Amino acid sequence: MSERTIRLDLSYDGTDFSGWQRQRNARSVQEELETALAALHGHPVEAIGAGRTDAGVHARMQTAHFRTDLPSIPGDRFRLALNRFLPRDIRIQESREADPDFHARYDARLRSYRYFIEPSRECPPWRARYAWHLRRRPDLGSLNAMASSLIGETDFTAFSSARDPAENRYRYVYSASWRYEDGQAVFEISANAFLWRMVRSLVGSMVEYEGEGRDPSWMREVLESRDRSRAGSTAPACGLFLWNVEYYRQPTRSSRYGDDFSD
Amino acid sequence: MSERTIRLDLSYDGTDFSGWQRQRNARSVQEELETALAALHGHPVEAIGAGRTDAGVHARMQTAHFRTDLPSIPGDRFRLALNRFLPRDIRIQESREADPDFHARYDARLRSYRYFIEPSRECPPWRARYAWHLRRRPDLGSLNAMASSLIGETDFTAFSSARDPAENRYRYVYSASWRYEDGQAVFEISANAFLWRMVRSLVGSMVEYEGEGRDPSWMREVLESRDRSRAGSTAPACGLFLWNVEYYRQPTRSSRYGDDFSD
Repeated sequence: MSERTIRLDLSYDGTDFSGWQRQRNARSVQEELETALAALHGHPVEAIGAGRTDAGVHARMQTAHFRTDLPSIPGDRFRLALNRFLPRDIRIQESREADPDFHARYDARLRSYRYFIEPSRECPPWRARYAWHLRRRPDLGSLNAMASSLIGETDFTAFSSARDPAENRYRYVYSASWRYEDGQAVFEISANAFLWRMVRSLVGSMVEYEGEGRDPSWMREVLESRDRSRAGSTAPACGLFLWNVEYYRQPTRSSRYGDDFSD
Repeated sequence: MSERTIRLDLSYDGTDFSGWQRQRNARSVQEELETALAALHGHPVEAIGAGRTDAGVHARMQTAHFRTDLPSIPGDRFRLALNRFLPRDIRIQESREADPDFHARYDARLRSYRYFIEPSRECPPWRARYAWHLRRRPDLGSLNAMASSLIGETDFTAFSSARDPAENRYRYVYSASWRYEDGQAVFEISANAFLWRMVRSLVGSMVEYEGEGRDPSWMREVLESRDRSRAGSTAPACGLFLWNVEYYRQPTRSSRYGDDFSD
C-alpha cells in the first residue's frame, strides 16, 4: 500500500512546552503531535517541522509533515481527526495531501517571526504570556535604523550561540522592521532560515543598544565583528511567534541552508 | 488621623476569577484586592469597583477606590505597594489620591466594553482565553446596522436578565459599533451604565440574528418588545473586556443610574 505525505499548518501556545523538538522528560510539541498521530494510526509516526522553536516560543503558523498509510482519511480531514487527540494548546489549522516527497524543513523557502514588546509600566495580565514586558517605550527610529542593516546575506555569528552546530552562519534576511501596533512594539523579520536564538539575540541587542543611546551603525559594526561577546542579552522567549513559513510552489532541494533552528 | 481616598486603575485576566464581586467559596478580584489592602494596612479595607464584571470577564481598565489611614504612602506609590501583594493575574496600572468623597461606582460617567470574536475554523491557542471562537465570519454591514439601533436612551429589558435587581432598565448608549481588527470582529460599546449580562446578551443576539439572515430592523423590534424570550443566547464571558471607565472632572452624584453590573 502506498504512503501519502500530509502537510499540516499548526499553531501553538509555547508557554507550557519545552519547544518543538522531542526530548527526554519534557513536554514538546513534536511529542504531543506524534502521540496524536500514533493514536490515529495505531503505530508510531514521525512528524517533521519547518522550524525547531525553542522553549516558550509560540507559533502562529508552524508547518509540519508526516507520512501516512491510512487510505481512508482524505488529506483535509486530518485536521479534525488530529485536533480531537491534541491538547488545547496545539491546534491544527489546516491539513492537506502534499507532493509525496514534500519536506517541511528542507523545502521551506522563507520563515517569518514576529517579536512583541509590551512597553508599559505594568504588564496587562492577558499579555504577560505573549510579550516581553519592557518598562519603557523604545524609539522606533533608532530600532529601524539598526534593523535595516540586517537585510541581505549576512554572517550572523555575532548573534548566534556557540552551542548552535550550524557551520554556515550566513542567512539571507528579506525584511526586518519595527512598528507600533495596538500599543506594542512589534519586530518582524523574514529570512530563508535562522540560527538558534538568532531572533531573540537580535531583539535583545537592538533594544539594549537603543536604550544605551548607541548610534544605529553599531549594529553593522557588531555584525561585522562576528564577535558574540558584543551582542546584547537574549530577549525572553514569550514574546516570540513563528509567524509564517513559505514554500516554493515547485519544491526544490537547492537551498544552501537545509537546517533551521528558528529561534 | 484623617483618611484619604485612593483611586486605582487596574487590569485583570478574568479567566480564573468568579468575577469582580466578593462571594463565598470563590476567588474574586475584589477579595484578592482586599486581601492585599489588608496585608498593607494591618486591618480590613473595603475596595469598591466601578463595574461588577461577571465570572470570566476581563478588565483592561477597571477603576476602584478605597479609604486609607496610612499617612506614609503617597497616592501614586500604592501601585507598587499593592502589586507586590497581588497575584499575577491582577495588576494595578495606576494609583493616585482622589477627592475625599470620590466613589468609583457612583461617580462614573461612562463605561466602555469591547467584545472580541475570533472568526476562524480553529482557534489559535493563544487567543482561546480572550475571544469567542465563532466558526464563521460575521458580516459587519448587518451587525453595524443592528448596533446603530442601540444608540441613545433605551429600555434594555429585552437584553437583561430576570435575575438583575435593577428597577430602571433604561441605559444611555453613547456609541456601539463593530469592526474587524487584527483578524477579529470587535464590538465596542460605551454607555452611562450597563445591566447584568447586557453586553453579552447584545453580542450573542446580534451574531445570532445576523447568522439567521434577519433584517437588521429586527434589533429595534426586539428592543421595543421588552420581551426577554426574543433575545438570542448570551455570548461567552471570555470575549468580554471592561475597556475603560470615565469620570466627570467635577464629581457629581446627579446620575440617574447609580448602579452598574457591567456585564
